[in-house]
Amino acid sequence: MPELRKDPVVGRWVIISTERGRRPSDFNGSAPTLSSSKPCPFDVGNEDKTPPEVLAYREAGTLPNTPGWTVRVVPNKFPALQIEGGLDRRGEGLYDKMNGIGAHEVIIETTDHTKELSELPTEQIENVLWAFRDRVVDLKNDNRFRYILIFKNHGENAGASLEHSHTQLVATPIIPKAVTEELDGALQHYRLKERCVFCDMNEHFVSFEPFAPRFPFETWILPRSHISAFEDSQKSEFKSLAHALQESLQRINKALNRPHYNFIVHSAPCRDTRLDHYHWHIEIMPKLTKVAGFEWGTGFYINPTSPEEAAQYLREIQLG
Amino acid sequence: MPELRKDPVVGRWVIISTERGRRPSDFNGSAPTLSSSKPCPFDVGNEDKTPPEVLAYREAGTLPNTPGWTVRVVPNKFPALQIEGGLDRRGEGLYDKMNGIGAHEVIIETTDHTKELSELPTEQIENVLWAFRDRVVDLKNDNRFRYILIFKNHGENAGASLEHSHTQLVATPIIPKAVTEELDGALQHYRLKERCVFCDMNEHFVSFEPFAPRFPFETWILPRSHISAFEDSQKSEFKSLAHALQESLQRINKALNRPHYNFIVHSAPCRDTRLDHYHWHIEIMPKLTKVAGFEWGTGFYINPTSPEEAAQYLREIQLG
Repeated sequence: MPELRKDPVVGRWVIISTERGRRPSDFNGSAPTLSSSKPCPFDVGNEDKTPPEVLAYREAGTLPNTPGWTVRVVPNKFPALQIEGGLDRRGEGLYDKMNGIGAHEVIIETTDHTKELSELPTEQIENVLWAFRDRVVDLKNDNRFRYILIFKNHGENAGASLEHSHTQLVATPIIPKAVTEELDGALQHYRLKERCVFCDMNEHFVSFEPFAPRFPFETWILPRSHISAFEDSQKSEFKSLAHALQESLQRINKALNRPHYNFIVHSAPCRDTRLDHYHWHIEIMPKLTKVAGFEWGTGFYINPTSPEEAAQYLREIQLG
Repeated sequence: MPELRKDPVVGRWVIISTERGRRPSDFNGSAPTLSSSKPCPFDVGNEDKTPPEVLAYREAGTLPNTPGWTVRVVPNKFPALQIEGGLDRRGEGLYDKMNGIGAHEVIIETTDHTKELSELPTEQIENVLWAFRDRVVDLKNDNRFRYILIFKNHGENAGASLEHSHTQLVATPIIPKAVTEELDGALQHYRLKERCVFCDMNEHFVSFEPFAPRFPFETWILPRSHISAFEDSQKSEFKSLAHALQESLQRINKALNRPHYNFIVHSAPCRDTRLDHYHWHIEIMPKLTKVAGFEWGTGFYINPTSPEEAAQYLREIQLG
């Protein structure tokens, strides 16, 4: 019997459909290539092929936009939003619009074109996370921005257009609908229980399969201590986060033959960073199923693998 | 300058990003194949390869589940929801669940394996639309169902697993989140203006590009008269709907080299079919861009083609 389950935060129902394919080996797909011989603007020596860097962790004495970096952040060459200008909110009859102002940056995670994030040394993953934080802290100084989204598209099926391992950051002038829904759902729970709904679901430390996952092997990473904004976590917490992210990705890679995946950092809006009811976290979504008409029409998801089974498969993976 | 636009119904913001690719020819992709020699369960003569039909328009004197049909509706062989059983709503601490009860059917639109929907005779398209209606009317008799979704996945990139032209129908025991959002948004507009928001945007007859489209060449088809539920339209209206759907798909096919696409029938829930504030319609979404981390994280969409430009391209297409 398939089961309908409701996410306790946003109220999104999912269908856990055990009649459909469900074991890791049922999700066949080719791993993203990381070996193309095409010239890559993120490779060392090609620093002039990207817009000038806004941040880089680099060897002492090396110049900006030259080799010597370990993590490098540059504006997206084809930004979805433009950094210069005012918002100019306006209405025309039924319709509201504003200028597409925002920041769109790329965090280049490594100099090594052939490595996926989880294959980097843990310290390097920690540096990448720290670069996320540094950029958020800087961009929050810009009063035009209300939300800063950090997300990773890994592999073509997950929407990546360049294979060199990278994460993206977009600062938006309004709080996105998906974020508002999450905040509203969390606030509703807090008003009822006077407890953070994420703290309530955090039986397992740091990394777990959520109750109502949209996708097979969807995995959330939740800091144990209650912090609303990603950038407010302490340096020491980034170390254990790097470990947790690396291990989760390694298990997913091994169980599912290196799938294409997305992850998204869910964090508080720029101006509301100390919320009793909200808890920042990362959601990892391997691309194993297709989002199509049903999902578009309903906002429902059909998931052929229960989170209990997925958790068991991932636990049983032998690492290293 | 990119532009942010807000959908006047659901309040979803989109980014019209003219800095990115935007002409029809910039969306390169291969058309779905309609010629595979693999055995197809929807072909004439293979009626025993599907579950027994629940509806068929067929020649007088022919038997169910044999050749002689023109449109045939069968249960999905791998249903997302199961037809037998009770809902058994229950809670476990933080978590709500219920049995995955519902109907999942397939409308086989033609006996001709090689034709895409818009290539069928208009009368056949009308029959397909009428089959949608007949199934909705029948399933609404089942008190367990609250919503009936009709959607089409055409082409592998749009989530189709069989190439033979078909549409799907799913009856769900709750009103999906995406539907509730649309209803709530429409109600808010009605309370303010005492007018249906869809009637307000219906300057153009029947087929148009919406103000804030999520995807390039997203096209909506809206009946001119105010009707909330698809199945309440009159027989005569199905004739002009068949024309409008055919012409829209033909223009999209010609402009974009036969793209993979989804369409979704947006209609009122089972128990609220006479709403002053809601207006049924069809949304056609060619699959030209990828939904990835940014869209997952925000609920925003980045659309590289403005609807004004898309409308112009589609208008200029010479048909037949």
